[in-house]
Parts: sequence; C-alpha cells; structure tokens
Amino acid sequence: MRKVTYGVGCSLDGFIARSDETVDWLLWSKDVERISSAFWRTLDTVLMGRRTYEVAVAAGTRSYPGVRSLVFSRTLRPEDFPEVEIHAGDAVEHVEQLKNSAGRGVAVMGGGRLASSLLNKGLIDEIGVNVHPILLGSGIPFLSGLRREIALELKHTESLSHGCIYLLYAVR
Amino acid sequence: MRKVTYGVGCSLDGFIARSDETVDWLLWSKDVERISSAFWRTLDTVLMGRRTYEVAVAAGTRSYPGVRSLVFSRTLRPEDFPEVEIHAGDAVEHVEQLKNSAGRGVAVMGGGRLASSLLNKGLIDEIGVNVHPILLGSGIPFLSGLRREIALELKHTESLSHGCIYLLYAVR
Repeated sequence: MRKVTYGVGCSLDGFIARSDETVDWLLWSKDVERISSAFWRTLDTVLMGRRTYEVAVAAGTRSYPGVRSLVFSRTLRPEDFPEVEIHAGDAVEHVEQLKNSAGRGVAVMGGGRLASSLLNKGLIDEIGVNVHPILLGSGIPFLSGLRREIALELKHTESLSHGCIYLLYAVR
Repeated sequence: MRKVTYGVGCSLDGFIARSDETVDWLLWSKDVERISSAFWRTLDTVLMGRRTYEVAVAAGTRSYPGVRSLVFSRTLRPEDFPEVEIHAGDAVEHVEQLKNSAGRGVAVMGGGRLASSLLNKGLIDEIGVNVHPILLGSGIPFLSGLRREIALELKHTESLSHGCIYLLYAVR
C-alpha cells in the first residue's frame, strides 16, 4: 500500500491561492527547500487536478523531474501536454488502483477539490500544511467538497523562516 | 490604546463550529486551561456577536466572571440578558471607542463575522488560534467577510495535548 500525501502551503484562513489563482504570497526559504527535498525523495508519483496543473504550467512548470506526473482532466488534450499523463477517467478509481500497486510515495498537489474527493474515499494518509502568516479573506480553499469529518493525528510541527509553520498530520 | 485579541479554537480546515453550531469536537486540557487562564488575567472586557452568545447561553454560560461582557445584537432584548451588556448599535464604532479608552485587554470570542468586521477596520491586534486535529469539511468559518488581505507576524507556537497546536499572531 503506497502512502498518499496531500501537501500544501496555505494562509491562516485556509486558502491555497487567491480567487484569481495567484500564489505570490507563498514564502520560499531554505527550510521549505529542505522539507520539500526530503519529501520529494520519498515519491515517485505526483497527482494534480486540472486547475492546479494550469497554474503550474503558467508558472513555467510543465512536469516535475524524476517522478510520474498525473493530471486529472476531462478537458485537457494529452497531445498538448506530452510531459505529463492526462487522465480523463475517474480520479478516485485511478488513485485507488495506484495506491494498491507497488511503488513509492504519491503526492497530491493543491487542488482542494482533488484532495477532498480522495479524502472522502479514505485514500489520503498524510496531510502536510505550511501555514503562512497571512489572512487572504477569500480564495481557493485548502479543501473543497469534503463530505465527512476526518480525525487527524498531529505527527510533527516545525517553525520555518518568515513566520511560517509546518504541520504534518496522519489521517486516522 | 487597549489590546484587542481574537481567540478561537478551530479545525485544521478553519471552522470554529459545525454548521449546526456544535463544538463538541473542541478538546479541553490542562494546557488549554493554563493558556486561557493566563490570557484571561490580561482582560477586563469580552466581546461577542449574537450567535456566539446564544451558543454560550445554550451551554449554560450567561456571562464571564470578572470581566465586562458585551454582546452586539439588534435582536436580543437587554432585559432578557441582564448578566451582559447588549449593544444594538454599530459594533465597529463601539469597539473603536473602547480601544481608545483606558483599561485592560479586550477579547473577541469566536464569531468569525464580528472578528472580520473588526479586522477590516484594523481594530484587532492579535489572533490566537488553537488548531485542532480534525477536518470538519463545513461549518462556521474562523473568519467571514474579511474584505482585505492582512499580513500577520507569528509570535508564539505551542504544542498542546491531544495534538492541538496554539498559534499566536500579531496583526501587522
């Protein structure tokens, strides 16, 4: 069973991007680099929803090196994005199969919708949140469409530069 | 100038109560008691919106000992709640005057709406959040109606019992 982790940077009020999808308020630091690198070394697959991938492409990132990048979308055409695997089918079913196959860790990039649909089905094992010292007031929520309450276990906390704090939870 | 602090317990996804206003998922501990007591000793006034006060009353708390309790409501009748001061006027104006008067600290109890209207006007100095290890998926948000972005400064973090973590921010 592969470990599936939802990792995001978010505002204290729980948004992962402004309503216009901008994320220039996210703070990079040596700390974030260290945590990201360590996390990245445990992975072989990265999952994204369509909106998250479009934001990545707009920022110049069409794929992530050294991992399989899967994008769930019914509208993107695979021939336009040969760097990644576009899946038009049901994301939950696909992740269920993936989780039961052999391999290393799987990361769900923000996208609160994809993460929520996977959480609804018990397919996410850990949630890592880098809480930023800002209130956005509105935007794209950290989770969206969660249909049940989910108990968590706090596994690790770490104060980062610029007043960020990293919280790692296991889904119980 | 009196310090105004918004203090709440919330879920990792930013809700202070379920949609039906229940908060039985909030976890009490010696740690929370210690932090609350220390905070309480800095106060002489507590502010609540109408919904928050109704939840407190339903839970058997009609007022808080040793402090002035102000409730902002256009519908509650002062004669029904002699234990507190009901203010039917504009909350923001009232808090502006209060903040500029002599006295000790002022606490805004959850209610995301009252806190947001005060944050919009720059009337809150600190935000203390006890992040609980649970995802509620829906409910009453930690803030509601914030009309601008607000930069924060992380002043203190503390791991509490049961996987809660306390984050204290100054509004910049």
